[in-house]
Amino acid sequence: MQENAGIKLFALNGNPKLAAKIAEDMGVTLCQASIKHFSDGEIQVNIDDSVRGDDVFIIQSISDPVNENLMELLVMMDALRRASAGSINAVIPYYGYARADRKARSREPITAKLLANFIQLAGANRVITMDLHAGQLQGFFNIPVDHLLAIYTQAQYFKDEGIADDVVVVAPDHNGVKAARNMAELLKAPIAIIDKRDEERIDPQNMTVIGDVKGHKCIVIDDLIDTGAKALDAGMALKAAGAGDIYACATHPILSGNASEELKESDYKEIVVTDTIQIPAEKQFDRLKVLSVSAIFAKALTLIYHHQSVDALFSKKDNI
Amino acid sequence: MQENAGIKLFALNGNPKLAAKIAEDMGVTLCQASIKHFSDGEIQVNIDDSVRGDDVFIIQSISDPVNENLMELLVMMDALRRASAGSINAVIPYYGYARADRKARSREPITAKLLANFIQLAGANRVITMDLHAGQLQGFFNIPVDHLLAIYTQAQYFKDEGIADDVVVVAPDHNGVKAARNMAELLKAPIAIIDKRDEERIDPQNMTVIGDVKGHKCIVIDDLIDTGAKALDAGMALKAAGAGDIYACATHPILSGNASEELKESDYKEIVVTDTIQIPAEKQFDRLKVLSVSAIFAKALTLIYHHQSVDALFSKKDNI
Amino acid sequence: MQENAGIKLFALNGNPKLAAKIAEDMGVTLCQASIKHFSDGEIQVNIDDSVRGDDVFIIQSISDPVNENLMELLVMMDALRRASAGSINAVIPYYGYARADRKARSREPITAKLLANFIQLAGANRVITMDLHAGQLQGFFNIPVDHLLAIYTQAQYFKDEGIADDVVVVAPDHNGVKAARNMAELLKAPIAIIDKRDEERIDPQNMTVIGDVKGHKCIVIDDLIDTGAKALDAGMALKAAGAGDIYACATHPILSGNASEELKESDYKEIVVTDTIQIPAEKQFDRLKVLSVSAIFAKALTLIYHHQSVDALFSKKDNI
Amino acid sequence: MQENAGIKLFALNGNPKLAAKIAEDMGVTLCQASIKHFSDGEIQVNIDDSVRGDDVFIIQSISDPVNENLMELLVMMDALRRASAGSINAVIPYYGYARADRKARSREPITAKLLANFIQLAGANRVITMDLHAGQLQGFFNIPVDHLLAIYTQAQYFKDEGIADDVVVVAPDHNGVKAARNMAELLKAPIAIIDKRDEERIDPQNMTVIGDVKGHKCIVIDDLIDTGAKALDAGMALKAAGAGDIYACATHPILSGNASEELKESDYKEIVVTDTIQIPAEKQFDRLKVLSVSAIFAKALTLIYHHQSVDALFSKKDNI
Amino acid sequence: MQENAGIKLFALNGNPKLAAKIAEDMGVTLCQASIKHFSDGEIQVNIDDSVRGDDVFIIQSISDPVNENLMELLVMMDALRRASAGSINAVIPYYGYARADRKARSREPITAKLLANFIQLAGANRVITMDLHAGQLQGFFNIPVDHLLAIYTQAQYFKDEGIADDVVVVAPDHNGVKAARNMAELLKAPIAIIDKRDEERIDPQNMTVIGDVKGHKCIVIDDLIDTGAKALDAGMALKAAGAGDIYACATHPILSGNASEELKESDYKEIVVTDTIQIPAEKQFDRLKVLSVSAIFAKALTLIYHHQSVDALFSKKDNI
Amino acid sequence: MQENAGIKLFALNGNPKLAAKIAEDMGVTLCQASIKHFSDGEIQVNIDDSVRGDDVFIIQSISDPVNENLMELLVMMDALRRASAGSINAVIPYYGYARADRKARSREPITAKLLANFIQLAGANRVITMDLHAGQLQGFFNIPVDHLLAIYTQAQYFKDEGIADDVVVVAPDHNGVKAARNMAELLKAPIAIIDKRDEERIDPQNMTVIGDVKGHKCIVIDDLIDTGAKALDAGMALKAAGAGDIYACATHPILSGNASEELKESDYKEIVVTDTIQIPAEKQFDRLKVLSVSAIFAKALTLIYHHQSVDALFSKKDNI
Repeated sequence: MQENAGIKLFALNGNPKLAAKIAEDMGVTLCQASIKHFSDGEIQVNIDDSVRGDDVFIIQSISDPVNENLMELLVMMDALRRASAGSINAVIPYYGYARADRKARSREPITAKLLANFIQLAGANRVITMDLHAGQLQGFFNIPVDHLLAIYTQAQYFKDEGIADDVVVVAPDHNGVKAARNMAELLKAPIAIIDKRDEERIDPQNMTVIGDVKGHKCIVIDDLIDTGAKALDAGMALKAAGAGDIYACATHPILSGNASEELKESDYKEIVVTDTIQIPAEKQFDRLKVLSVSAIFAKALTLIYHHQSVDALFSKKDNI
Repeated sequence: MQENAGIKLFALNGNPKLAAKIAEDMGVTLCQASIKHFSDGEIQVNIDDSVRGDDVFIIQSISDPVNENLMELLVMMDALRRASAGSINAVIPYYGYARADRKARSREPITAKLLANFIQLAGANRVITMDLHAGQLQGFFNIPVDHLLAIYTQAQYFKDEGIADDVVVVAPDHNGVKAARNMAELLKAPIAIIDKRDEERIDPQNMTVIGDVKGHKCIVIDDLIDTGAKALDAGMALKAAGAGDIYACATHPILSGNASEELKESDYKEIVVTDTIQIPAEKQFDRLKVLSVSAIFAKALTLIYHHQSVDALFSKKDNI
Repeated sequence: MQENAGIKLFALNGNPKLAAKIAEDMGVTLCQASIKHFSDGEIQVNIDDSVRGDDVFIIQSISDPVNENLMELLVMMDALRRASAGSINAVIPYYGYARADRKARSREPITAKLLANFIQLAGANRVITMDLHAGQLQGFFNIPVDHLLAIYTQAQYFKDEGIADDVVVVAPDHNGVKAARNMAELLKAPIAIIDKRDEERIDPQNMTVIGDVKGHKCIVIDDLIDTGAKALDAGMALKAAGAGDIYACATHPILSGNASEELKESDYKEIVVTDTIQIPAEKQFDRLKVLSVSAIFAKALTLIYHHQSVDALFSKKDNI
Repeated sequence: MQENAGIKLFALNGNPKLAAKIAEDMGVTLCQASIKHFSDGEIQVNIDDSVRGDDVFIIQSISDPVNENLMELLVMMDALRRASAGSINAVIPYYGYARADRKARSREPITAKLLANFIQLAGANRVITMDLHAGQLQGFFNIPVDHLLAIYTQAQYFKDEGIADDVVVVAPDHNGVKAARNMAELLKAPIAIIDKRDEERIDPQNMTVIGDVKGHKCIVIDDLIDTGAKALDAGMALKAAGAGDIYACATHPILSGNASEELKESDYKEIVVTDTIQIPAEKQFDRLKVLSVSAIFAKALTLIYHHQSVDALFSKKDNI
Repeated sequence: MQENAGIKLFALNGNPKLAAKIAEDMGVTLCQASIKHFSDGEIQVNIDDSVRGDDVFIIQSISDPVNENLMELLVMMDALRRASAGSINAVIPYYGYARADRKARSREPITAKLLANFIQLAGANRVITMDLHAGQLQGFFNIPVDHLLAIYTQAQYFKDEGIADDVVVVAPDHNGVKAARNMAELLKAPIAIIDKRDEERIDPQNMTVIGDVKGHKCIVIDDLIDTGAKALDAGMALKAAGAGDIYACATHPILSGNASEELKESDYKEIVVTDTIQIPAEKQFDRLKVLSVSAIFAKALTLIYHHQSVDALFSKKDNI
Repeated sequence: MQENAGIKLFALNGNPKLAAKIAEDMGVTLCQASIKHFSDGEIQVNIDDSVRGDDVFIIQSISDPVNENLMELLVMMDALRRASAGSINAVIPYYGYARADRKARSREPITAKLLANFIQLAGANRVITMDLHAGQLQGFFNIPVDHLLAIYTQAQYFKDEGIADDVVVVAPDHNGVKAARNMAELLKAPIAIIDKRDEERIDPQNMTVIGDVKGHKCIVIDDLIDTGAKALDAGMALKAAGAGDIYACATHPILSGNASEELKESDYKEIVVTDTIQIPAEKQFDRLKVLSVSAIFAKALTLIYHHQSVDALFSKKDNI
């Protein structure tokens, strides 16, 4: 990997572990900044090093607590801009509020767009993120967005573990079929779809599995696991349809509410997620496998810092 | 319908027939404006009536020729703003470039977003459109977007024609499953998916139909028909899978290239589209059924002009 | 009070009690909106009534939890804008982050300004607030800011309670002398200043009281009480200087950390605050007197809604 | 000429020949990009080389088909911005819509300004153009505009060809007198004006030539030749007034409608234009002389790329 | 004239006389505002009446002292915006800096554009002005500009005074020929041009008059008279060419330096200007005739206030 | 001091002497530009050197005549932007209109904010200024503001002159107590406050001095001296209270009206100001001591030009 001296890498409180790993992978030391939260919630940022004219990268996931982490990012960028940073790159492994990406009914906000506006207004020159809920979110920005993918890392894992043979990739709902198809391409596998009505959680008897899963291993793929309800429903439906071992795979482990407890006791043999969101100890469990995406981010940040194309990161043959 | 006197409705060259129908449905006369195209392509707009302080609605589909129609809309809005219109409402039954809604690879534009920026910059206060390729496009705007749906009109047609009984709603690719599910809900029907690899046009033998279509009528649903390739592939795959009568249904009939000729000779019993895009005579054919969406637009414009909620337009029970 | 039918008043979670009181004083009913907080912190807003073309007022204090309340306000405004509200008026009784109003050292953010930018970007047409930490914060906005004052209400209270006679108004630090002078004018009283070095909390022996307080009642005045340290120091210094009964007076009761417990056991005879920030039950105590500013806001909102001048609210003779 | 390695030069479809010549004059190779036009008119741009951090120059004339060429430029700039180009320089040899530069009546757009807004919004950092219809168009931009002139090249041609002796420079209408005066200075010649009423094409008998042209060679000078009507009228008026050999000279050969046929059969001995607009083979004819402005653009781009002043390009003594 | 009650008309210090006349013609009273200039030049504005929600018109010529008058206008608009005016209309009879409308050389500002940006930024919703130096200046704005003309008033004067018979309209330089042609149309007169080299003031012998003026009355027409040099040169050239009585006609009487003294002693029989710029007593002289444009402004403001078209103001048959 | 070759330093007419000193301290030559003021007040700027891609610093105090100097700065920045300067740094030793920093009553402008908007709009990338009337003014900008302080220079002077021993630092009004405290820290001195009612100039008998001044030397400290009234009042009050030698100290010597004459004859032993504002000869007098801040600006500009932190400039131990 190239020389990264000169780059200024900051970690906020959203995901310090991933940030530390990225820095290590890049061979650099994280810059120092203090981020204080006062007892009423106000955030105060102090940057210890000079950043005048430097290319600065801030690593922050907009994960639980979403609004706190968002404000940390925004306040930090304002500080950097007023400190005359040369360029401000927001590295957002998990971009929260991404599902609030359109007005479904009259009188709803489009919060993902609001965030994009704030991020630009606070001074970002570029965003680097991963597996957005919808690719269209790139268009919420007027600045460049580098959209990284966890799929190669995930597919490699399934291959390495021998799970990829005789497997069916399953979309847990109607929106996810394209993602299932993409993973299926990498694993040379067929796909299936869980067909539910009206997006409510219902009896597995009422769910139909479209496609042949009987006796096959299955990987249920999604961009994120939030309450876990969707994965659990899919699991029940697949079992009811006679599937063999079942695996869940997602990039962003939100694991809100009691998702972890329920998944721990589910039929899933393994839940494979990444470290875009830092999982607190009490939410971890044996069958939860966490793949690290630090290498992808480290490679991307290095290429960007050196003004080189990130194309290679998206090429199938280089990645799997 | 309420009194619409005072509203200023303009039609540009993108879809004058639909505009005329909307005006008729609203009980108003279209305002006069001359739009000249010089021989080198430059557009000149002249508005004959005063619009000072008025609520103006411009009806223009960004359809073939896309760039001409887009520029007509933009130049017209600039004229209206400089003529001190009270509010400028862009009524865009078909929003072209909608598929260019994200950067798929490095170094691609996001043209749908660029258009959104231009439309706002030229002076639009609101956009009224129908069946965007992705709902997220609403978030490309900071101004209100009213997103109308053709699905109720389409479902009603299939019910009225007796096609809705014992039918399967089919998604022609992985991205369209959600839309198929929505139509299936209205028709109380099951769904199926055409499973293709890599988005290239391939032999029907290599396409899999996921879901049970054998002996059933099928409706292949999509937001638009462009070259027709996707619909034709789906038709072949369905026939190969033993489907009964097959129907294609889409909102926007782009029908580019020789789509019409190929569809005319396809296995489809009927191709059901709407009039968001005006179809030239030479592209029309017997089995192409055009439903009008003028009533939906007329209702929406009337509600908006009177500052009333357009909620009713999205309520299932009111619509079907 | 004039007829307020037609006004749309919304309360968010920052201060629902004050909002209810303002609505009552205005003779209107609060509009309905649901604000859901998901378990990872994401906020979802749903507005139940149509607001097309209406003048909307949102009452929200940016108080503890500051970032949550801020995001609620911003997301709500985005929803209202996309729902085509006629005008959006942000009523912010307590404007959090107001002390982060300038860069004290290199590499600090100016968060109060960042908030102002966000509020404008999210769609606010006007801000109505009270007792900003510095009047200059109005200049952070390009939109109109109506800056209301609690001082008349406070002064009236001291007069009504007989505290105003033979009293000295005390500034607890060097920045607050002007505010002390203003209150002193209304009470026809002299002023004194607590002279501390270096803004650190120090022994009362090391603090000097400039001005004559010996044997006099004293009112220590400030814009807000946060941790209470400043008020407690002032109390000790005044007692050491031989002051008689001492009172603390502030507009915004942040009362963070264990401010309430410490103030409860302090020498203060009474702590007089307002209801710009809603005080949780566990932070209330006997000697904490809460004056309501609802009447001032009700009057201001009514005048603004009717496009009338709010001048009268600032005239001494009308107010005390 | 200096070393231009590192510059990224792109040619779009507006004027590939001039672009190739400029590249050749600069000693660089044009970068590769594919610009696809779909059958409904949508444009898709793909840039093959990385441009991260590079100074990029796009050469595109906004000539017939004007809206297509304009959209190509705008979409390309959006792609470059999202690909993180260091700076984006729009090289627009012919800036279409330039005559739509003011509101002549109520309710007219100012399309030249709209274009300027779009060009800036799409990401241009600078515009390099030639012989704008009115110099004021520079003020439509907030970014730097380098306004190059063809006059030195044209004057040199007339001198080299021996046409400059005993010649009268003629303005074909009232707006063009200043331009005629400028050329006359370079050729040390007197001027004359064609005096027409009301800008309509009328009988030559009704046109007056102000100034003495009898028996003299005449050069009719204009910024562009569109339909040719103005030049033809001028020719007839000059012949009626007894002029000797007549020449037409213009920078931008729009040659719309049947301009070429009419000019070919006119009394003009030669029509001297430049290659800012690429002339299709069927519009070329013997007496149409095309001077190349590639050397001026090559010199300007080189100076700009090296952050040097372009002053020298405007100095008379260096240029003629 | 219609009822104008409700309109808020303010006069600043640039041209209080014209403002008073316009108010009188409209049948309204000017609103009260105090504009204080401190001894170091700082301007302080206080508006005495409430303007919440009102349509406000501010009459201010950006004439000598240009920067003071400009700042008055800008500061006033900021006050009105912050006072929640409904709409802010800048009425600028003379728009100073209009000649700084393009970059003539490298490294020049375009100050007319800068002013346009400031006027919009300070809150103007519309500009009403007269006889801009170049019509293109309208394109410097994104807001509506109503561009009024003095020519009908001027032509009527010449007709009424019997000067219009057997007269030649003369352009004093190459840029003014179009304006001369326009006046000539109204007076049914021929035109002539003063042909000077290089824009320097030179000996009349070296100036050529193109066109026949011998023995004819002449009206030299220009948009403004600044130092008077251009008019004086033209006068000398015309007299040398044997012209009869000569008249100068201009809209804006800047009369800077000792223009008045020199014009008073010139050969001009009359200098006809308007009151867009208020002429101080010491610059007035017998042969300086001042036509009032107050009626045109009064009519325009009334139409605009009532949301009616200002077209009629530009129709030849209605005006002369 | 480091090498500053390559920096482009321009001086406008606001404070050429300070600019010359700064340039000298930095070891560079001022760049050449001509700034013409026409007789009607219009300003014309011509920059003689190429600035393409250069870091440009413009030194201009917005002092008397405030509007002229402001416009010079704005027009100059527009010229530099259009000349493609790499970065534009506005060095504003005295930022006029700084006291107009909030709306004190309804319907007042916030002119300091308006200026900030203009400065950003005209193209500034950064502002370097000194001792703003309120630190909050930094928040009026979205660009970096470096806020330099004269206090170390002033304190050093008082120490060097032996005035710092046994001295009391006096705030002349309630707003200035914090500044007095800061100076007192540096001089290890106590503070006192002049307590006036209602900000009107009143009899010294009616002013109270809070704090002990009897028999002590006093330094009255303020950010600026405008009409001198505040300082004169303070002087009288201090003398009445038995103070010893009294000194006035301020950063910005506006000295408007007859401030100089009155101060010359006052009881002040010395009036200590800086050269942020150039004092005309007729306003200078013996007891007016002018300290130069050129060294601070030279150091700051050098650090900024080399992308280094300006922190050191604010560290007490480095400065005194």
